[in-house]
Amino acid sequence: MGNSLEIIVAKRAGFCFGVKRAVDLAFDAANKNSQKGDVRCCSVYTLGPIIHNPQVIEKLKSEGVEPTDDIDNPNIKTIIIRTHGVQQEISERLSQKGYEVIDATCPFVKKAQQYAKLLKEEGYQIVIIGDKGHPEVKGLMSYAGKDVIVVNKEDSLPSLKSRVGFIVQTTQPLDVLKKFISEAVEQVKELKVFNTICNSTALRLKETKDMTKDVDLMIVVGGKNSANTTQLTQLCNSVSIPAYHIETASEIREEWFSNVKKVGITAGASTPDWIISDVEKRIRDIGGRGL
Amino acid sequence: MGNSLEIIVAKRAGFCFGVKRAVDLAFDAANKNSQKGDVRCCSVYTLGPIIHNPQVIEKLKSEGVEPTDDIDNPNIKTIIIRTHGVQQEISERLSQKGYEVIDATCPFVKKAQQYAKLLKEEGYQIVIIGDKGHPEVKGLMSYAGKDVIVVNKEDSLPSLKSRVGFIVQTTQPLDVLKKFISEAVEQVKELKVFNTICNSTALRLKETKDMTKDVDLMIVVGGKNSANTTQLTQLCNSVSIPAYHIETASEIREEWFSNVKKVGITAGASTPDWIISDVEKRIRDIGGRGL
Ligand code: F3S
Ligand code: F3S
Repeated sequence: MGNSLEIIVAKRAGFCFGVKRAVDLAFDAANKNSQKGDVRCCSVYTLGPIIHNPQVIEKLKSEGVEPTDDIDNPNIKTIIIRTHGVQQEISERLSQKGYEVIDATCPFVKKAQQYAKLLKEEGYQIVIIGDKGHPEVKGLMSYAGKDVIVVNKEDSLPSLKSRVGFIVQTTQPLDVLKKFISEAVEQVKELKVFNTICNSTALRLKETKDMTKDVDLMIVVGGKNSANTTQLTQLCNSVSIPAYHIETASEIREEWFSNVKKVGITAGASTPDWIISDVEKRIRDIGGRGL
Repeated sequence: MGNSLEIIVAKRAGFCFGVKRAVDLAFDAANKNSQKGDVRCCSVYTLGPIIHNPQVIEKLKSEGVEPTDDIDNPNIKTIIIRTHGVQQEISERLSQKGYEVIDATCPFVKKAQQYAKLLKEEGYQIVIIGDKGHPEVKGLMSYAGKDVIVVNKEDSLPSLKSRVGFIVQTTQPLDVLKKFISEAVEQVKELKVFNTICNSTALRLKETKDMTKDVDLMIVVGGKNSANTTQLTQLCNSVSIPAYHIETASEIREEWFSNVKKVGITAGASTPDWIISDVEKRIRDIGGRGL
């Protein structure tokens, strides 16, 4: 039967722009380091895991890039800041220590940090919408100054001053921003809102949804504990398209594809391209054998 | 029985801050003019009727202050701008003509005009929420520049640029502002909102509502065609408190007050104090006769 199985891979499957950039910067650093003959001397560190994907972390480790939580670690020569960014104080301390700093803060997060700083300079009372415990929000808070207010989905706004500025954690849903600005406008005279929500997740979901209209089966690739991968699988189920959530190509079973003419592949934000390619290749092999 | 009838007058009955200020400025101008021996020479004009109340207009006319729509009227020496404000071009032409200009633009409207100017200077695309045909909005539009967008309650927003500034006609309801900023934040990156809604009407309604809990009867004073006076009467009806809508004290009938122990007086935004005082006096007389 030849290639009777048609395969479509979602364009937005896997890494978003910011994560791709950060992972590339980490591998570049590893590469540069190994050219200096330094591989395995462990002088390149990421401040926290660069991404929540064990395969990527392992691969980086094998090339001499390790995560650390301790900025005073005496082995550090080069340190990589991950997509979430860091507090202003930490950024300053890293420079003071004389490290080579590779700043892989996502440019969208960087912008949000700059907006926080700007709102502070302009004298606005600042509200950040997001999760106080999340590293991205901790970073934003440091730029917004000590009087910053952080609110999460279920919170209510406290009583506000007359001029208020809003910034939003990049992964927040738009509805939460809408809720808070509606509440704020009841009590304030001037409102400045930087909508710093990144549409990467929303677009990935939309693309996957559109894809389901066109295929018989969906393969969703990503960590079993990855929230946004699970969300992709749930989306497929909600439109009654059979979907398998797998971490790697090895989990794929030939029998899934009997009676399937067209299969779609999508992947969560922390799934690297090479794992998606492996999956595609494995399915192509199955298709090639003629089902 | 003596003063068996208790009378409460709403603190916010009648003129709002801006209208009171404008009417005072007009009477001051009349007074100043008559001291110069100029009374009835008609050299003092208001640009359009200063307020929608025939008694006030008549009183001003008798003191030599008349409305005109023609800024080239050769009799003008002094011209009064009313609470709504005027277009920037008109304001400039009035000065060029060498008139003495008394600017009775409500300070809240003036502020909104300044915000429009500021948003324009800061390069925002400007949206005004309000009624395109209303003089206040025409004035705001002139400060916002030719690319301004005006939307009213039922409209939808057009496609917007990435940085958008909002100002609001002072008499718009808050819900309309909320609706439009919710819509806007879906498409823009930066939103600057000046909530220029004046809370005078909302506070007057609230005070009247609170009052109804405490009285047996409400007397609502104001023009029969005054929208905000009618709204006050409807509010009383909606909480099942008997209410009479009158224009002047002469309409009051003694029999309304049999079995009434406590009466509340409120009035629309264009009702002058002296009419409210007349009403209070007339009811006091009735109460004094012992019901
Ligand atoms: S890390 Fe990714 S999810 Fe958006 S904010 Fe940056 S592109
Ligand atoms: S005219 Fe009156 S209603 Fe408000 S905007 Fe000025 S106080």
